Amino acid sequence: MGSLPTESLSVEEHQQQQVEMDDTSRTERARWLLNSPDPPSIWHELAGSIREAFFPRNKLSSSSRVKQTWRRSAFSFLRGLFPILNWGRNYKASKFKSDLMAGLTLASLSIPQSIGYANLAKLDPQYGLYTSVIPPLIYALMGSSREIAIGPVAVVSMLLSALMQNVQDPAADPVAYRKLVFTVTFFAGVFQSVFGLFRLGFLVDFLSHAAIVGFMAGAAIVIGLQQLKGLLGISHFTNKTDVVSVLGSVFSSLHHSLHNLTIPSLLCDFLAVLEAIAVGRSFASIKGYHLDGNKEMVAMGFMNIAGSLTSCYVATGSFSRTAVNFSAGCQTVVSNIVMAITVLLSLELFTSLLYYTPIAILASIILSALPGLIDINEAINIYKVDKLDFLACIGAFLGVLFASVEIGLLAAVTISFAKILLNAVRPGIELQGRLPRTDTYGDISQFPMAIKTPGILTIRINSALFCFANANFIRERIMRWVTEEQDELEETTKRTIQAVIIDMSNLMNIDTSGILVLEELHKKLASNGIELVMASPRWQVIHKLKSAKLLDRIGKGCVYLSVAEAMEACLASKFAALSNC
Amino acid sequence: MGSLPTESLSVEEHQQQQVEMDDTSRTERARWLLNSPDPPSIWHELAGSIREAFFPRNKLSSSSRVKQTWRRSAFSFLRGLFPILNWGRNYKASKFKSDLMAGLTLASLSIPQSIGYANLAKLDPQYGLYTSVIPPLIYALMGSSREIAIGPVAVVSMLLSALMQNVQDPAADPVAYRKLVFTVTFFAGVFQSVFGLFRLGFLVDFLSHAAIVGFMAGAAIVIGLQQLKGLLGISHFTNKTDVVSVLGSVFSSLHHSLHNLTIPSLLCDFLAVLEAIAVGRSFASIKGYHLDGNKEMVAMGFMNIAGSLTSCYVATGSFSRTAVNFSAGCQTVVSNIVMAITVLLSLELFTSLLYYTPIAILASIILSALPGLIDINEAINIYKVDKLDFLACIGAFLGVLFASVEIGLLAAVTISFAKILLNAVRPGIELQGRLPRTDTYGDISQFPMAIKTPGILTIRINSALFCFANANFIRERIMRWVTEEQDELEETTKRTIQAVIIDMSNLMNIDTSGILVLEELHKKLASNGIELVMASPRWQVIHKLKSAKLLDRIGKGCVYLSVAEAMEACLASKFAALSNC
Repeated sequence: MGSLPTESLSVEEHQQQQVEMDDTSRTERARWLLNSPDPPSIWHELAGSIREAFFPRNKLSSSSRVKQTWRRSAFSFLRGLFPILNWGRNYKASKFKSDLMAGLTLASLSIPQSIGYANLAKLDPQYGLYTSVIPPLIYALMGSSREIAIGPVAVVSMLLSALMQNVQDPAADPVAYRKLVFTVTFFAGVFQSVFGLFRLGFLVDFLSHAAIVGFMAGAAIVIGLQQLKGLLGISHFTNKTDVVSVLGSVFSSLHHSLHNLTIPSLLCDFLAVLEAIAVGRSFASIKGYHLDGNKEMVAMGFMNIAGSLTSCYVATGSFSRTAVNFSAGCQTVVSNIVMAITVLLSLELFTSLLYYTPIAILASIILSALPGLIDINEAINIYKVDKLDFLACIGAFLGVLFASVEIGLLAAVTISFAKILLNAVRPGIELQGRLPRTDTYGDISQFPMAIKTPGILTIRINSALFCFANANFIRERIMRWVTEEQDELEETTKRTIQAVIIDMSNLMNIDTSGILVLEELHKKLASNGIELVMASPRWQVIHKLKSAKLLDRIGKGCVYLSVAEAMEACLASKFAALSNC
Repeated sequence: MGSLPTESLSVEEHQQQQVEMDDTSRTERARWLLNSPDPPSIWHELAGSIREAFFPRNKLSSSSRVKQTWRRSAFSFLRGLFPILNWGRNYKASKFKSDLMAGLTLASLSIPQSIGYANLAKLDPQYGLYTSVIPPLIYALMGSSREIAIGPVAVVSMLLSALMQNVQDPAADPVAYRKLVFTVTFFAGVFQSVFGLFRLGFLVDFLSHAAIVGFMAGAAIVIGLQQLKGLLGISHFTNKTDVVSVLGSVFSSLHHSLHNLTIPSLLCDFLAVLEAIAVGRSFASIKGYHLDGNKEMVAMGFMNIAGSLTSCYVATGSFSRTAVNFSAGCQTVVSNIVMAITVLLSLELFTSLLYYTPIAILASIILSALPGLIDINEAINIYKVDKLDFLACIGAFLGVLFASVEIGLLAAVTISFAKILLNAVRPGIELQGRLPRTDTYGDISQFPMAIKTPGILTIRINSALFCFANANFIRERIMRWVTEEQDELEETTKRTIQAVIIDMSNLMNIDTSGILVLEELHKKLASNGIELVMASPRWQVIHKLKSAKLLDRIGKGCVYLSVAEAMEACLASKFAALSNC
């Protein structure tokens, strides 16, 4: 920095000056790291995520842009709430033709199913049909899925009657029971809207792609088994033990356990939404678009609130009807509008005729849609790419097939999260070497051409957290490598290790257990005459090391901006020590 | 690479050649990444961790070193099993003086406590005293803690009688009851040894430093409250409701719930070990050494097996006596041997006299040790360094104080793991800029001097996993930044974004959901004419991108060894495009 060039320097003096300049700039750059501003505090981050949750696109704008931004954001808010404003502008006659056919097919399936499911919910048939009219219309305005078929479903109908029977016997007082069901539907809608508005839709992200593949395959087989009965004419669909005979036996046990728990209906509603979004997202991923869990929750909440005020009970996305809608070639949610209008008309005109639609025809419609849901190739791909993901996939599949939808989902989510924890508890740690002709350091197992520097160990911790769950593991692993390297060095060159560089670039955070272990490591290495050097600690890490006063105790000179700079510094001090000898 | 220097090149040709050489070497280095050998498979890693679990230091050695290694490893195995072989060699008279005093103090406390706790366990007094003789001797040979005081403890005594009374009434047949207790002790020992041998001791790591600070403070207050009663002479210690009156009321509720569950004794034993190791580790961390959970489990298992064969019941580390042992200045586990011998002698000689030791004296001994256990400064430090860690600390503290030891531990472990999951679900994502005069890229918020390149966004994902739980979040955040940057660029320079460089250096792994989102992101960016470039993907990530054939679909040219190389390549293609215009 500003040292004037002098002409009368010898070569050695030149070299000396160069070394000093390098030293200075290295230290200066390390200071960038040490003096970086404080990272946002946890309160700031919390406030940020709340702000982001409610005003997701509210960015700081200059005063000249405020007007435009306000108008823009008002329109974007409306478009967000009513996605129909987006796709409605490009809606064409050709799309309507597809939607019309899909909607009519859907209606032919919805009418008998709605009647059957109303029976399951211990309500009169017309309430099932109402549920296939109002909620789909509301969803068409507010929902984002193009394929989902809205209406009553077997699982929710069955859970609803199981829960409500405890409170009010439908046989004793059907009117009181019906009022109770509508009240529950209203509150289900309120809960769903609130969940969506508070942006808790991210909970739906906990269903991984692998879990959805397994879930779909399992559900397809279960639905197929139900329909086979109808196809083969084993029994008649209006008898409740028939249409859902496979699920029925499973849910009778669930029913008993629910009896004992008097579980809050909130949970059931949430599960219904979770399944609906899983269904919607499954088909969205086939068509290559993305479904926002929050918007879906709000849409479903509003449709159930509106439904409860118009004599409908809890509606959600139906797996089998969505499959039919998809394979019938629906283009947009207009097929739901067509379906709703058709159901409304048939409520007025054809109900008695539609009651006698041959069940075998309905069953074959559903069955023809199922093979597409069982994606064996994707399951094989998942196995090839990620074994633990495949475990979640198989968990969802077997859970749905042999236990229930809920248990299948639970198994998949548990396996997936266990994987995240395993990664934090047993992180990878690697020995690094310099890649030839670069300043980049890489894993010596991954890059066989990487060059190790004798006497200086470079170790990278492959974890986002250095915390209680892995601190001891990391300490032991590092100490073992140091011991092994020391043994090897002593045998071959009779020298010892000078420094251990810990590449911290992957560590996003460190907790008090991690800081303690780091200090312990420093002490242990120092007692063997080995220097501990930290390369590229991240923002939170350097901040915490400073807050914990660890850098004051072990010296700020042990922090460098990158592994390459740390290595240069170690080599420089090594040569300095040698030349002083 | 081997291109001969030619003399007749113009400056432009020279430059052109230089650019091409840079290009070649960049591509070549990217190939190191693309053609790196397959990472170890999950089966290989599983086998590795099993091997490491059972033969922790078994490294590959050349044939010339086999003999030495065998002899070494046999000795290291013995030293591992009997830590007394390590510290025994350096044991000095001065240390023994301290241990003698500590051991005698400990014995004076152990005798009345053992009698009281035997009473709690519904056994005759002598069985409590036996438990203060044999297990401490075995532990002294095999254990690693220097401060822990082994013997009967209140919690385990109470749980034992609560569980065993259901099976056999001690009043009806004391001999059968006693045999049952010894059988349970035997199996408790077997379970503990097996847990230790299978190296499940890492479960103890789940108690973070912060949790231990909170746990100690809470336990100190609970023990202090018990002792205050003794100190103030409120009641007499041999009455069981006195010595453990505070804990008693808590455990009576636990007792009732245990009645209903017929919980396996395995769980209680495991909890006892967990607490003992927490106690041992708390004091170890004060003295700055480390306790191996596996060795401790094996030691406790063997001491309980040996104990059950010599008329002892379940022994573990006592919190209050460990505190006394520590404050009495114990140096090694020899204080336990002194204590055991003293108890043995008093069993023969002084039992009747010791029965009448004033309880107020014992209480004051314990009370004087407690203030040191409440480390308010450390709690303040934890608050300063890590707010969520502090939450775990407070959880443990309040749990122990107002509920039970188990609930306190559970609260702390739950909060700590929730923190790990939160980190994976909502990872940080940062915009990067180049640090002046380096090839290093850093967060533009952390490094205000970092330089952004117009038209090329550099984004780093600060998570170890790109998976189902955060893939959508990451995708949305990246797309928002791209939109914002695009808006800004259009307003200022009327240009558009050319490329988005994703710095993958922090990602250790990616799952099928993550790969899908990456492909979606590539498609969405490509449809806007923006190139997606990946910089320094790690071993597992590049392997999975290859297995999933994603690189075949989006092109292998989009992968570079580092952000700097990716940036150079982007700039080169940008200039090439400009010069072609």
